[in-house]
Amino acid sequence: MIKTPYLLFLGDAPDQLAAKVAQGIKDWRPEFAVGQFRMDGCKADMGLTDMTLDEAKAAGARTLVIGVANRGGVISPAWRHVLAEALLKGFDLASGLHNLLADEPELVEIAKAEGRELHDVRVPEIDYPIANGRKRTGKRCLAVGTDCSVGKMYTALAMDAEMQKRGMKSTFRATGQTGILITGDGVPLDAVIADFMAGAVEWLTPDNDADHWDLIEGQGSLFHASFSGVTLALVHGGQPDALILCHEPTRDHMRGLPDYTLPSLEELRDVAMLLAKRVNPDVQVVGISVNTQHMSDAESAAYLAEVEARMGLPTVDPFRNGSGRLVDALSALG
Amino acid sequence: MIKTPYLLFLGDAPDQLAAKVAQGIKDWRPEFAVGQFRMDGCKADMGLTDMTLDEAKAAGARTLVIGVANRGGVISPAWRHVLAEALLKGFDLASGLHNLLADEPELVEIAKAEGRELHDVRVPEIDYPIANGRKRTGKRCLAVGTDCSVGKMYTALAMDAEMQKRGMKSTFRATGQTGILITGDGVPLDAVIADFMAGAVEWLTPDNDADHWDLIEGQGSLFHASFSGVTLALVHGGQPDALILCHEPTRDHMRGLPDYTLPSLEELRDVAMLLAKRVNPDVQVVGISVNTQHMSDAESAAYLAEVEARMGLPTVDPFRNGSGRLVDALSALG
Repeated sequence: MIKTPYLLFLGDAPDQLAAKVAQGIKDWRPEFAVGQFRMDGCKADMGLTDMTLDEAKAAGARTLVIGVANRGGVISPAWRHVLAEALLKGFDLASGLHNLLADEPELVEIAKAEGRELHDVRVPEIDYPIANGRKRTGKRCLAVGTDCSVGKMYTALAMDAEMQKRGMKSTFRATGQTGILITGDGVPLDAVIADFMAGAVEWLTPDNDADHWDLIEGQGSLFHASFSGVTLALVHGGQPDALILCHEPTRDHMRGLPDYTLPSLEELRDVAMLLAKRVNPDVQVVGISVNTQHMSDAESAAYLAEVEARMGLPTVDPFRNGSGRLVDALSALG
Repeated sequence: MIKTPYLLFLGDAPDQLAAKVAQGIKDWRPEFAVGQFRMDGCKADMGLTDMTLDEAKAAGARTLVIGVANRGGVISPAWRHVLAEALLKGFDLASGLHNLLADEPELVEIAKAEGRELHDVRVPEIDYPIANGRKRTGKRCLAVGTDCSVGKMYTALAMDAEMQKRGMKSTFRATGQTGILITGDGVPLDAVIADFMAGAVEWLTPDNDADHWDLIEGQGSLFHASFSGVTLALVHGGQPDALILCHEPTRDHMRGLPDYTLPSLEELRDVAMLLAKRVNPDVQVVGISVNTQHMSDAESAAYLAEVEARMGLPTVDPFRNGSGRLVDALSALG
């Protein structure tokens, strides 16, 4: 578990998009973001107070989170200097970079000497059990997609925020690097050893109050030839009571697979239900979340209305319309 | 790749069953088994010539394969002494034990000094790619089961042996520890990192002659809450042209999951076909392999006839009846 609150390290981000991890924390856990640390030439800005390490420390920050993708896969000497200084000033470090903090001998040695923690959220920190398939108390909602990167994490975070606002009991359960850095906790599912995937998801979503909802971050797609096994482990380990179907309607092939078209929402519904019923006979599809960012307002509204009529399910773009109708549908489940 | 042929190490096996890896090599790759090495008190016997390390070396053996499960998960001092001597005499070592050769400092140091290889087949030896889903040349057959441990490996090995006898082009592709030790090569799929499972299966079953069949060793079950993700990676990475359904009819719950009954063969057929069509629209179920070891001859015959009539597919117990009819069905595919 990563200690909060954070100072967000934006480094020398070439643009706003490079800092999307920081943006996610700012958007979804603003209470975790004490300030931002920018180096010369940084083109990203979260609208937070720019702070020195000392100022952030005084403001209560406990972890410096690398909120930016690095160029060329290397931690530059300029970055390393800041990270080393942060450790010396008492910060833990957290990173979702491909190249690990644990592979930087200088940082490892300083952390050891100072008693600080290095969190590489791409690497599982614990040994997960084999899944046992036993029914757990509490309720679980899983977003499944027609493809990768269609808005599953966004949908779950938006629903969690709406449920918190309504005073419902809910927890967003992160299963990917960005989600883990946003919330400070979770399972980096794509890095787990095959035999333990479903067990890791069970571990992440344990027994809970009867009226508590886990909003489980989806990964991949049951239809994606590269990552479908990870998705099925989420379905079988997550034991969802509710499924949300996620889709991006303007894509002409599966992400990274030019030979594959996307399945229809009907196909996704049928396959996901068939597989999920194995672990929870009462599972239901409660709504549809569409990422319409590449459509005009009019196109988006028309598309959502068409899907809603066709599928008979509440259909929203949570970014444009909010996730209230999806949460209504969850509440209606009881 | 493990160097053949082997000397089979039976250690102090308490019974024949404890040496089932050695039995598999003896049954399926007898040409790899130069002889057996037994310690005092060994109760297993493969019917091979008992050899000293020197005799086996003179007979051409290149790798000492640990063909026996160890007691209590520890490599005993008596075993370690033999293994060290084997390294000094020029053997590589291969093991599928939970506790790794690589975790035995003495063996690691000797292997390094002598230029010998330690093969722990539970640990992937290479970095597998992300699956790309592209259509490959050649043909592939995958055994899928209603549960784990219902005879998927046996079925694929039996079909491969029958195809070799008929002069057909075929390769058994191992995806588990025992299969890898039997054939000297393969992917330990349950130990692969989640993101690379399907890619590992693609790597294992590359482009081949148009009339060549890969017989892919199945793992887990699409219906098994603990391991279904591994199975789906096999279906999507394997791009099967042909599926064989495997079943064990006397089991009253899924292996390791007391709360779960087995699916019917019809359910297995429908779910496996639905998922496999995503990567190969022409996939067909060609036959059924039933493990009837817990039935009498008469019960077995009656059960197989009933299933064959119900499902309309050639149905055999390859151990009792041979796999000829399954291979006929593959041949009929063209």
